[in-house]
Amino acid sequence: MRIAVDAMGGDYAPRTVVEGAVEAAAELGVDILLVGPERQVKQELGRFKSEGARIALVEAPDTIGMGEGLFSLRKKVRSSIHIGAELVKSKEAQAFVSMGNTAAVTYISKKILGSLPGIEKPGLALLIPTLKDSSLLIDVGASANCQPHHLVQFAVMGQVFMETTLGRKNPTVALMSIGEESTKGNELILKAHELLRESGLNFIGNVEGKDIYRGVADIIVSDGFTGNVALKVSEGVVETMLTMAKYEITRNFLARIGLLFLKHHLKKIYKKIDYSEYGGAHLLGVNGICIIGHGRSNARAVKNAIKLGKEIIEQGLQEKIQENLALLKQAW
Amino acid sequence: MRIAVDAMGGDYAPRTVVEGAVEAAAELGVDILLVGPERQVKQELGRFKSEGARIALVEAPDTIGMGEGLFSLRKKVRSSIHIGAELVKSKEAQAFVSMGNTAAVTYISKKILGSLPGIEKPGLALLIPTLKDSSLLIDVGASANCQPHHLVQFAVMGQVFMETTLGRKNPTVALMSIGEESTKGNELILKAHELLRESGLNFIGNVEGKDIYRGVADIIVSDGFTGNVALKVSEGVVETMLTMAKYEITRNFLARIGLLFLKHHLKKIYKKIDYSEYGGAHLLGVNGICIIGHGRSNARAVKNAIKLGKEIIEQGLQEKIQENLALLKQAW
Repeated sequence: MRIAVDAMGGDYAPRTVVEGAVEAAAELGVDILLVGPERQVKQELGRFKSEGARIALVEAPDTIGMGEGLFSLRKKVRSSIHIGAELVKSKEAQAFVSMGNTAAVTYISKKILGSLPGIEKPGLALLIPTLKDSSLLIDVGASANCQPHHLVQFAVMGQVFMETTLGRKNPTVALMSIGEESTKGNELILKAHELLRESGLNFIGNVEGKDIYRGVADIIVSDGFTGNVALKVSEGVVETMLTMAKYEITRNFLARIGLLFLKHHLKKIYKKIDYSEYGGAHLLGVNGICIIGHGRSNARAVKNAIKLGKEIIEQGLQEKIQENLALLKQAW
Repeated sequence: MRIAVDAMGGDYAPRTVVEGAVEAAAELGVDILLVGPERQVKQELGRFKSEGARIALVEAPDTIGMGEGLFSLRKKVRSSIHIGAELVKSKEAQAFVSMGNTAAVTYISKKILGSLPGIEKPGLALLIPTLKDSSLLIDVGASANCQPHHLVQFAVMGQVFMETTLGRKNPTVALMSIGEESTKGNELILKAHELLRESGLNFIGNVEGKDIYRGVADIIVSDGFTGNVALKVSEGVVETMLTMAKYEITRNFLARIGLLFLKHHLKKIYKKIDYSEYGGAHLLGVNGICIIGHGRSNARAVKNAIKLGKEIIEQGLQEKIQENLALLKQAW
């Protein structure tokens, strides 16, 4: 099994990406194709004991930054994202993993790999931890402009994802809105609610932002703009609370002692909500496996993103989604 | 000063509303008009020592539930929300406070009180705590369907709000999006970004969901759908973390001791993020003062919502917004 990894993606690239890739090659038994400017990547690789490790370099001279728009993407056709996607297209790799610019990875992957039949827009699917277990949030940022039927397509792909990867049969589907009632939401959501109700999916209605971590549904469907805001707000709230707690506690001796007793337990909680444990999100709907990780990924997160790619290859998820799309009525 | 309070609004109405109103009348030196089915409200009022308190009852036989749609609102014209707004219209009250259905309060207030000149859609403005101080988030749920120029109108009203209530001169305005770059966002946000840049406001660009509690801008503008999701996700994350912490800590003796040392500090943090401290959000853009509180408000939150109404009356905010709207170029 061979996985292409964008060596230049993310805020700490290429260092943490190379580190994570070395760990993945050693621990997961996969071959890694590190894609990036060869000299620079080789130099980073020299920092690690990677002799004999199953890592090869693939030259990609261009680099796409986190904030670059479509215009410059179209010019930089030899970027690590372009070459990574092409390796999947030519079947030299079975999956592509990037911690880079979500919009760029989405746009380039779709352009090079094409879409699955019946899918108009890709949806970035992320498994989030909940009080009960986990829920799949789709889309968390691939398609900012959606029409109602795109949300149904996200739900269908999410259903196959949850059945295949977690064995949840006939998973429940909810729609992210601003009230539980079918009358609540914006125009997009009101119409999507109707379509989902008629879709034959196990649709349980709307959920509000406050419910997404409560585990009320297996799949929560959202347009990419709202889903991305929801995800990043969550991140911000956790960080804010930790910063506040740190400030309060370090100023006080007794509180510091209290923290000592609690540390182990707080770490357990943090581990549950820490994105680096989850690795990345799966770009569903393009004709090939793409995993997009957090821009701030550390080496552990990179390794876990590669691990996610490996699992998806082993489970044959991509093929199962294709089969299901062919079987489903193409009403949307 | 007289403030009308919707006795039937919120999940624990009329009990907590009446309790909060009694506290407000005693502590804040305002007259309260409690609006609702008189017999039922009177009965609740009997539970409190309110003799001599400046509380009067105003009959409103109809009640609007949290999930009721527009159709039933149009029929229930004698609801506590209708009568409350009418008391402001007739100047019998200087403000109306409700913990009820946000969509209903928005729709009815706009219908009865009308809009401020130049404002097409009301924006619900909430002061949120940040690591630095506080930011105004507008719209958190009044207008789910917005056009780009509505977001500029929200920003203008937010500016006057921050200058008037908090004395922040030339406050910074940011736009909620899914990336800091002007190229990131959905169609609504890309266009609103352009308009805000040309507006003459102190516009500093986009912010992401993770930034809203970091205090990066005085005002964060959003359409009502996204703003509401952002707010409720925040609520959900805090609740989820507290639930997880409770579960982890109560199972372990040492952790319980640790918590004892920390309790005081955690309470300080919780107080900072607890919505009941903030009371409510201000519905900007209608021709009269309306405060909408959280549906789950306890008596303390009800009292603080009334307090917010009192402060807004004293500061002459409504008049100042009107003056500023008249002065501003009507390009949007």
